[in-house]
Amino acid sequence: MRRVSATGIFAGASITQSRAWSYKARTREYGFVHETLNYDKHFKEIGQEETCTPEFVNTIAEECGKLCENTLFPLYMSGDQEGCKLDKDNYVTTPKGFKEAWKAIVEGGWQGVNGPEKYGGQGLPPSIAMLSKELMATANWALCMYPGLSAGAAVTLLHHGTEQMRELYLRKILAGEWTGTMCLTEPHCGTDLAQVKTKAVPVPGEDNKYKISGTKIFISSGDHDLAENIVHIVLARLPDSPSGTKGISLFLVPKFVPKNEDGSELSDKRNLLCTALEKKMGIHGNATCQMTFEDSEGYLIGGPNEGLKQMFTFMNTARIGTAMQGVAHAEMAFQNALSYARERTSMRSLSGAKNPDKVADLIIHHPGVRQHILFCKAVAEAGRCMLYDMAKITDKIELAEAKGDKKLAKKLDNELGLLTPIAKGCITELGLEAALQAQTVYGGHGFIQGNGMELIVRDARISTLYEGTTGVQALDFIGRKVLLAKGGELNALSKKISALAKANMFKSGSIGANARALFLERGTWRLAVYKIMAGALKDKDFVGSAATDFMMYSGYIVLGYYQLLMAVKAQEKIDAGLDTDGYYKSKVDTCNFYYARVMPRGTAHGAIMMQDAGSVMKPDADAMDL
Amino acid sequence: MRRVSATGIFAGASITQSRAWSYKARTREYGFVHETLNYDKHFKEIGQEETCTPEFVNTIAEECGKLCENTLFPLYMSGDQEGCKLDKDNYVTTPKGFKEAWKAIVEGGWQGVNGPEKYGGQGLPPSIAMLSKELMATANWALCMYPGLSAGAAVTLLHHGTEQMRELYLRKILAGEWTGTMCLTEPHCGTDLAQVKTKAVPVPGEDNKYKISGTKIFISSGDHDLAENIVHIVLARLPDSPSGTKGISLFLVPKFVPKNEDGSELSDKRNLLCTALEKKMGIHGNATCQMTFEDSEGYLIGGPNEGLKQMFTFMNTARIGTAMQGVAHAEMAFQNALSYARERTSMRSLSGAKNPDKVADLIIHHPGVRQHILFCKAVAEAGRCMLYDMAKITDKIELAEAKGDKKLAKKLDNELGLLTPIAKGCITELGLEAALQAQTVYGGHGFIQGNGMELIVRDARISTLYEGTTGVQALDFIGRKVLLAKGGELNALSKKISALAKANMFKSGSIGANARALFLERGTWRLAVYKIMAGALKDKDFVGSAATDFMMYSGYIVLGYYQLLMAVKAQEKIDAGLDTDGYYKSKVDTCNFYYARVMPRGTAHGAIMMQDAGSVMKPDADAMDL
Repeated sequence: MRRVSATGIFAGASITQSRAWSYKARTREYGFVHETLNYDKHFKEIGQEETCTPEFVNTIAEECGKLCENTLFPLYMSGDQEGCKLDKDNYVTTPKGFKEAWKAIVEGGWQGVNGPEKYGGQGLPPSIAMLSKELMATANWALCMYPGLSAGAAVTLLHHGTEQMRELYLRKILAGEWTGTMCLTEPHCGTDLAQVKTKAVPVPGEDNKYKISGTKIFISSGDHDLAENIVHIVLARLPDSPSGTKGISLFLVPKFVPKNEDGSELSDKRNLLCTALEKKMGIHGNATCQMTFEDSEGYLIGGPNEGLKQMFTFMNTARIGTAMQGVAHAEMAFQNALSYARERTSMRSLSGAKNPDKVADLIIHHPGVRQHILFCKAVAEAGRCMLYDMAKITDKIELAEAKGDKKLAKKLDNELGLLTPIAKGCITELGLEAALQAQTVYGGHGFIQGNGMELIVRDARISTLYEGTTGVQALDFIGRKVLLAKGGELNALSKKISALAKANMFKSGSIGANARALFLERGTWRLAVYKIMAGALKDKDFVGSAATDFMMYSGYIVLGYYQLLMAVKAQEKIDAGLDTDGYYKSKVDTCNFYYARVMPRGTAHGAIMMQDAGSVMKPDADAMDL
Repeated sequence: MRRVSATGIFAGASITQSRAWSYKARTREYGFVHETLNYDKHFKEIGQEETCTPEFVNTIAEECGKLCENTLFPLYMSGDQEGCKLDKDNYVTTPKGFKEAWKAIVEGGWQGVNGPEKYGGQGLPPSIAMLSKELMATANWALCMYPGLSAGAAVTLLHHGTEQMRELYLRKILAGEWTGTMCLTEPHCGTDLAQVKTKAVPVPGEDNKYKISGTKIFISSGDHDLAENIVHIVLARLPDSPSGTKGISLFLVPKFVPKNEDGSELSDKRNLLCTALEKKMGIHGNATCQMTFEDSEGYLIGGPNEGLKQMFTFMNTARIGTAMQGVAHAEMAFQNALSYARERTSMRSLSGAKNPDKVADLIIHHPGVRQHILFCKAVAEAGRCMLYDMAKITDKIELAEAKGDKKLAKKLDNELGLLTPIAKGCITELGLEAALQAQTVYGGHGFIQGNGMELIVRDARISTLYEGTTGVQALDFIGRKVLLAKGGELNALSKKISALAKANMFKSGSIGANARALFLERGTWRLAVYKIMAGALKDKDFVGSAATDFMMYSGYIVLGYYQLLMAVKAQEKIDAGLDTDGYYKSKVDTCNFYYARVMPRGTAHGAIMMQDAGSVMKPDADAMDL
């Protein structure tokens, strides 16, 4: 931490207040989550049992964990402080060390973990890639957005690109030689892509070649100095295309146009430029670019006017990736708050001195501090478990698609689709709150930049805004995933929750108590769903007014499901005498904390969503600020 | 907003995304709040009815409002971007324009509004000073911390200083020629002042002169270039003083030691130095200093070892001032979110097109956006009403003290003391959330620095941390204000709430419904208080675990009281046909929103606080991060 030195009579008086600021790859978590979620069985089902053994998963976690602790995490704070720079010739420079870190990611093969072997990837299931992504996300979110956006571009090309595009662009991305972006937002529209204005004009006499013109903003990883080329996936309109979302098409626009088939030679001139870098609240290490297209050469991906549909392939990946950001920040926040609370002394415990040898007790003994820390732990661990359960579905979708079983893929996609907005909406909101609560553990020191806690908050803030705000997730959830689907997927989820509750509700102790609480809460939630479905017929604004509370309520219940699932597994270990160091008891304790002190917030969301729309819709906006 | 210009082929392609960013002094609020709180009667009771007429209050609001809109607000964003600087000679420079703004504040007489006329102040009641403080706080919080800290130093000198100190230092502060600070925190302790190490050694043969040595951190307005001298109020230990808080004394340490009685001549050499400036998440325009004392000349304020008691005079003022920060940020967040939502288009309304002439509807028509805006409005207005009600007590305390009626002053102080931690704890938490919700209305644009919304969030963040975190307020509330007081003051508050509810619960429409809701919630809250009091006898950790939820629960109820109080007054106006433009209906609507969608969160806090302490205290901290 920077300290201005004192001079003159006070020379030498300067002090530092820098606090512990660390990151530990808690690799043990993955083994536990895998066991809780029956990943052994899952890997068998998808024919990966020979590769994806528990030992292999452990090795992945440990190897990637080392990379994160030694290379990515040390650049987290410096990357924030330095930020990205745009020079007068429109070249973007990333913070010091990012180039070397990127090289290490590429050399470790982490960029292509779940890319098809056919295109140079490692052919591992998405759930394994998620593991490395989570570790990297926690260690340095801004940095890991470069590979993150590349993964989004890769999945789009894999599903919708031509074979030629895959051979050239996908191969380069999986090799980590090139990176990718997604160019959706324009200055006047983000969520509402119907308003997209960027134009694509066919080049006469050329096969699938277009000239793209327009301005895209908020392009994460839009330009940088990490890789030699960047593959932009761009939403634009063909001439005479229908208005609205039905007239949007998807294009591939490379930063440098390849001059040959394997991309080993590139044109000298840039095909599009970064014309501005955003000054942002956080994620300074990632370049958020305004990209200007001016007759930039591009190629149509898939059919004309099918852009929005194709974009959803990316969007779902991106939303799950953003949900992971919630877990990542909650985990980092948790680790640092815990470590600080075990070092810092203040006041005596209300129930008598806990550290009589010290001038005051460690703050970990204060109930208020413990609540903040346990909140972070509960969010990180339940969120993690949820996302790895979702990753199992992603694995299966990939397999179904590889086998050409479109019906199964669609069915699984619906299942995943129900959970995606809950994960993105709820986990990022709770992740942001975890970051805030952990910052509070530091008191005033949490506000100081060198102590790092405010950095987590600033980075976490964007997670609830990009890839669709929480409100947008809520509308996707209630509208497309519940009402349009007539509750089909929701019924299945509800049954799954109910089954877990029933299987454990007659057990003794906290497992039984928490299972009963889950059972009852699920019942109330179910009634709320019926009310929403009935209300939707009469009053659309009722649906809109209930949306966010409904999604958050659902999130609290789903996370409660995963807390209980983990506690049941942990209790089995304890009962079998396998809890040698208290790791499993800590899981059971976290679940107890969740049910006692987090779940009641869900209940409040449930009460709020049942209110009629009047209190929201009746107020006259023009009179509000008189 | 800064935009990098494009060059070369893209020259001229650069765009700006800068959004409306404004501040309007809603002066009408003060008239309404004064009327709601029967300020006419109050001013009569304190003998100020001739000065403090409604017209006078209006003039104050309008004059100060102009200063805020024209001079302070325009420096809000630039002050954040530029920040304060410390040079190699330990001189601090404030951002461009701050000097001129400070001069304007002083010339307007705003610094001495409620200082005694005897020492050059204007002799107006504290409630009038609060009005100007709120306006300034909203327009530019970082800037108004310079007069804010001065006010804290002034009130300490007024109550505990010698007549000589008042004649010299207080007079200079009230004139705005000098400013003040409070130096409490040290690197190893903030809340726990028992650990204070700074030493004060008497200078032999000199009357009340000491040499102070030590390091203080987080000193807001600790050094700057606005005024010629700074009066530091410092906690330190005398030799052989008892350990802990019983051995702390209060000292006055000037930046430049005055050489004569009226302070017109100052020593050339600085008496203490700013040895570091903190790099912080927000409030960049205010200098947060590390102050190093090395045999710095100081003078004891009040008796030896009475520092902590005296410090509470300042602390209570500071905590109410910080609660005001919550109102200020909620108000600014509200105004900007509302203005943006009336301009920005996105998607069509679920219940049919509202702006069919536009490509999409204004986002103000979307229920989720409206909820964010109404939340900010509800918090700002209820918080404001609560603080102006508290200001009436402050007015009365000042009068009782002036009359020498210590018993009455003490009684009133207890009444105010119960409300202070609720106001500081709850209003700042809700103010921070309001800032976050308003930022969300801007979507991704809320994350961009030039749009200002992230600035409010960064500034708001500190309000829940300094002057005691929310958890510290909660312990003060439950421990000192409820349990030690055996519920005395709380009973009076509860009765007051009950009386309002009863008086309105049989009315028709929303007033009656909300009154009934308040009546029922108050009953549950009352039971919770009894449970706390019973539980405290058996388990101190139960008290600690319940503290924050109890305080927040109390806060939601108290703010609900003020929402209802305002709605009742507004409904009277409507019924009398006086609502010409919808201003009063907007008050009734905001109250309805509060009861439907904010109050249930309070209920959740009530449920959480009733849980036993086990889920918080039993988890083993050492096993948490295995």
